[in-house]
This record gives sequence, structure tokens and C-alpha cells, in this order.
Amino acid sequence: MTTVANSVPDSLPDTMVAIDPQQAGGPEVLVPVERPLPSAGPGELLVRVAAAGVNRPDVAQRLGVYPPPPGAPTIPGLEIAGLVVAVGEGVDAGMLGKRVCALVSGGGYAQYCSAPAGQCLEIPEALSMIEAGAMPETLFTVWTNVFGRAYVAEGESLLVHGGTSGIGTMAIMLGRLFGLTVIVTAGSDEKCARAIEIGATHAINYRTQDFVAEVKRVTGGAGVQAILDMVGGDYVPRNIACLADDGRHVSIAAQRGPKAEIPLWDVMRRRLTLTGSTLRPRSGEFKALVAEEIARTVWPHVAAGELKPVIDSVFPLDQAADAHRRMESSEHIGKIVLEVP
Amino acid sequence: MTTVANSVPDSLPDTMVAIDPQQAGGPEVLVPVERPLPSAGPGELLVRVAAAGVNRPDVAQRLGVYPPPPGAPTIPGLEIAGLVVAVGEGVDAGMLGKRVCALVSGGGYAQYCSAPAGQCLEIPEALSMIEAGAMPETLFTVWTNVFGRAYVAEGESLLVHGGTSGIGTMAIMLGRLFGLTVIVTAGSDEKCARAIEIGATHAINYRTQDFVAEVKRVTGGAGVQAILDMVGGDYVPRNIACLADDGRHVSIAAQRGPKAEIPLWDVMRRRLTLTGSTLRPRSGEFKALVAEEIARTVWPHVAAGELKPVIDSVFPLDQAADAHRRMESSEHIGKIVLEVP
Repeated sequence: MTTVANSVPDSLPDTMVAIDPQQAGGPEVLVPVERPLPSAGPGELLVRVAAAGVNRPDVAQRLGVYPPPPGAPTIPGLEIAGLVVAVGEGVDAGMLGKRVCALVSGGGYAQYCSAPAGQCLEIPEALSMIEAGAMPETLFTVWTNVFGRAYVAEGESLLVHGGTSGIGTMAIMLGRLFGLTVIVTAGSDEKCARAIEIGATHAINYRTQDFVAEVKRVTGGAGVQAILDMVGGDYVPRNIACLADDGRHVSIAAQRGPKAEIPLWDVMRRRLTLTGSTLRPRSGEFKALVAEEIARTVWPHVAAGELKPVIDSVFPLDQAADAHRRMESSEHIGKIVLEVP
Repeated sequence: MTTVANSVPDSLPDTMVAIDPQQAGGPEVLVPVERPLPSAGPGELLVRVAAAGVNRPDVAQRLGVYPPPPGAPTIPGLEIAGLVVAVGEGVDAGMLGKRVCALVSGGGYAQYCSAPAGQCLEIPEALSMIEAGAMPETLFTVWTNVFGRAYVAEGESLLVHGGTSGIGTMAIMLGRLFGLTVIVTAGSDEKCARAIEIGATHAINYRTQDFVAEVKRVTGGAGVQAILDMVGGDYVPRNIACLADDGRHVSIAAQRGPKAEIPLWDVMRRRLTLTGSTLRPRSGEFKALVAEEIARTVWPHVAAGELKPVIDSVFPLDQAADAHRRMESSEHIGKIVLEVP
């Protein structure tokens, strides 16, 4: 049973424009196609998408190395913002017509996308649709890993590689908002300068400086309490050298390789912790819990205009290929967003 | 200021017999020598040692690869039981004449040993001096790592390698006492049978069975929630294959090598945690906190006769060399103890 919103067109179309490549490949496989409208199942909302964030896993999915989890749409896109146009069974009809952003397990690169109601956050006035569509994936990821798994507390220091990436910029801003010293690495002096503007306490150009030595230097030899790592491979032992006693290392990707050699005596002597997580395959219950926590802790800052995503660029949905080319260039600073007509 | 106990000889000798090798080497360097009596400093007790436990780190120290931390005695021995014969400044004189066991940072292989009062536990009637001297090191180690770092809770399962070692037997008994399923590995069918007698739920002969496959089998494919690992090296990736989702891996030694290759995607996908610790270099404050916790949680079971160490063998102090030979043979089951005349 689906109730259609009154504040939006009385009837919904049967089909929509979406990006839904049928084979793995380069950015050129991302072409607009016609697809049936998704429906709002029990506990779900149907959203008329206004903006969809682009994330690294979308690129991996396009390349065929990160298939959607069972039950997820083949249409890429892990975060959306838009207008609620229908609600499924068990969802408050009062949500109809509301502006929401949502973490979804796929399907964002489309005119319509269904989302579990528990994974939606109402968009405050302070955010545009583009901004709201650029938040859920990095916000949920940074929140659960930095404040959850690494249990970082006010006054502690955090190292993040790729300080100008979507994750990096969110980690900087969220870290500053909650009283952390945030140290980032980036691949150029320009990116480092931008990271400092965004709020990083220190930014290290990893092409011209040894980040281990620099982290030691800027922390007075003590090291950092936590590291959010997307790099993996040979960065892990170097990260470990950056950790303070009782430091925590959280992996969320492994761009330089999935294997890491760790020095066990360092782990024991300094009581380090290495852990990690992936967000997409988690249960709806877990994601709804995170959404609730974010609504309570972070969303008031968003409503007050104190936290907005850093937007690198906006591409129309039918130019998703260019959006991916931009991401793969690694020249972007902050989020790349698709605007959905 | 030192107060001498009334219930013990009125005066203390100036010297004592101790094992205090001046150079690294084989077991033969462990010969009795004369040493000045240690004194009870502020916050310390002086103990007339009746029994001293032998531990793997003592062997490493003898070999010259694990030097005592700064300020610790060069005399080996990390745990003692005996009679309090003097108290230092700030220590309740009511302790004089009491039977205590203690975790010490060295000095146990001797007739007298000083110990921080906070690291002492009064010995209940249920324990002999030999039994009490065989408990602190393994009890503090298993407690802080299994229930602390790995936060194992009732109903969960724990894998321990070396199930018949001092640590292994303590982990089995403590695990059973607190409602864990304890799976161990050992190097012979005889040791496996003994581990089962001591309380292990499953014992795997690692020489004839693949422990990864066996752990999977006995846990119905789920894996274990926690692993207490003394092996390190190539066991770490195999251990990781044994862990359930959200599993915890705690390193306390690295007998097969200090480097381990870890599969980062497994860590992320299954949200594993790898950590570790060493007990000896921790602060007196930390050890006193652990002692308090143990006094509250474990000691009532000891007083009730529900927890006693498994004693492999007892050697007189002047045969410490034979005690080390026994440990290095790896034929022992449970604790090797020195009896001090």
C-alpha cells in the first residue's frame, strides 16, 4: 500500500531516467536509461531525487569489483536528497512532501529512489538539496568509525589521509565540531592549504614530506590517538608508527592494497587497536540507530548552519560519466554531486 | 621507615639467596648467589618468599632478549607468594605476618622480594603457598586481556593456543568460571585430553588437525568471538579466519614471529578488532586497579576453592636451571613453580 503525496504531482510516472550500466567498464558505461519506478516497500519512503552524492564505492561498483549487496538495486548511488512522494506500509503519511536526505544501499543515480524511513533525515533550511545529498555517506561513515569504533573523545587527535576527499573534508569538519585536533595528509600544497581552510589543524603534503615524521613533530613526539585510514597496504605499518600509546586505527578502505604487515610488539607494547568496518552491508536496524544518533548529536549543528559539506562540483545526472572522471582524477576537493532534473 | 613483623623472626638478615645471573645464556646461568636483602620502599611490602612462579618472559630475560624495565630488579621472577615480614612507609602494619601473593616486576627468584602493596592479594585458606605463587602472572594477564581488552562476555567463545601452558590452563579455568566456551589448541593428544579435563570445551591437536577448519566445525561455521594469542607470526591470519563477525584478537606474545600479515578487507567486512598488551611495563596504579578488580570478581571463587592453578612441577630455588629446562622442553602442563627454602 502506497500513499501518494499531495504536495507533489498527483500521480507518479511508471518509468524514470536512471544510470544503470549493464556491464562493468570505464566512465562511458554511465549513460541515462529508462527504468521502472521503484516502489516504497514496507517501512520505506519513495523519494523524488533532487541530488545524489558520488562516492568512491560507486567507481568500484562501476568497475565490477564491488558488486551491490544482495537485494540492493544495481543502479549506483549511496546517498540522496529529495522530496518524499510516497510512503510504504507502516510509514507516517506526514512525511509526504518533506525534504529528506537518506543513506541508501544503492539506487541514488535516478529520478526516484526508495529509502528505508529509518535512514532518512529531514533536511533543515540551512542546507540546499545539493548539500544534503552530499552528506549521508560521509557523515554516517565518519561518525560510526571515528566516534564509534575509534571512540575518539574531545581533546584527542585524529589523522586522516586524503584530507580533501569527501571523507577527509567531513572528518575535518566533524572533528573540529567535536573538539578534536585533526591532522590530514594530501597530495599537493594547494590541497593542504584548502584542508587548513576547511578546519584541519595540520596538513601534510605526503609527496614532499614524510608523514610519520611530520605527525611525530606536530604532536610533540606523542603521536595521534586515532587514525581513519582509507589507504591500507604499506600505509598501515607507517600509520602504526604515528599512533600514540593506546591509539586506535580504523580501516574503511584499502586503496593501496588489502594486505598489511603489522608489528605485533608495537601493538602489544603500546596497546594499539586495529579495527575497521564497511557501512553498506550493515543492517537497516543498525543504520537506523546511527541515523537516530546523528539526528540527536550532529543534526542540530547542521540546522544551525555550522556543518555543511564541502562541494567540489555538481554534474547533471546524464553527465554521471564526467562526475566519475572527475573523481578518478583525484583532483576534486570535497564532494562531487549529481543534480537530478 | 620499615616496621618488622612480630610474627616472623625479630630481625631480618642482611643478605639472602637469589638467582641473579650476570650474563645472558642457557639455563646453567641460573645459579644461587648471595644478594643484599631488598627493602620495602614507600607503599611496598617485604615478602619472605615461599614460592615463585616461572614464566616464559623469565626465559626470554635469561636469554637476554627481554631486559627488565627501568627500575626493576635484575633478579628474575614476576610472581611470588610468601609471608609479609616488613612494611614500608604508608602501608598498614596490620599486613605484617599475612600470607600474600603478588605480581612483581622482577625479583621473585629470591628468599626476599619487595612488592607494591597494591599488587598483593591475601592468600585464602584454600590455596597453598605453591598454588598462590603460581597465580598472579597468568591471572592478571588473562583477566586484563580476555575480560578487559577483548571484553568477552558470558556465553561467548574464546580460542587460546597452548591450552596446557600456564596462560592456557588459567584461560580455560577462568573462562569456564565466567561462562565462556573455551577452545584450545595443544601439541599432542595427551595435552588435548588434559585440557578437556581442566575444563576446555574443545581441544584441537594442531599437529594433526587444521585448527582453522576445526574451530569452524565446532562453532557451527560461526567462528569464535575472541582469541588470546601468544603465537603471532603466520598464526595471526589463520586466527583471523577463526573469528566471528565483530571478533576480537588479543596478542600477548609472538612466539612465531613479531610480524603478521593481516587481510584488511576481512577486518572491515567482519568488523574485527586486533589489539594486544604487555603487563610488566604497566604502571603500579594500573596493576593495583587490576588487583582490586580481581579481588572483587575472581578472589571469592579462589576462596571458595573453585579456582586453583594447574601445577606441573615444583623445583627448589637452587634448581631454577632445571625449572627453565622443563619450561623450554614445552612438555609441561600448567605452571612450573620454584619453592624457596
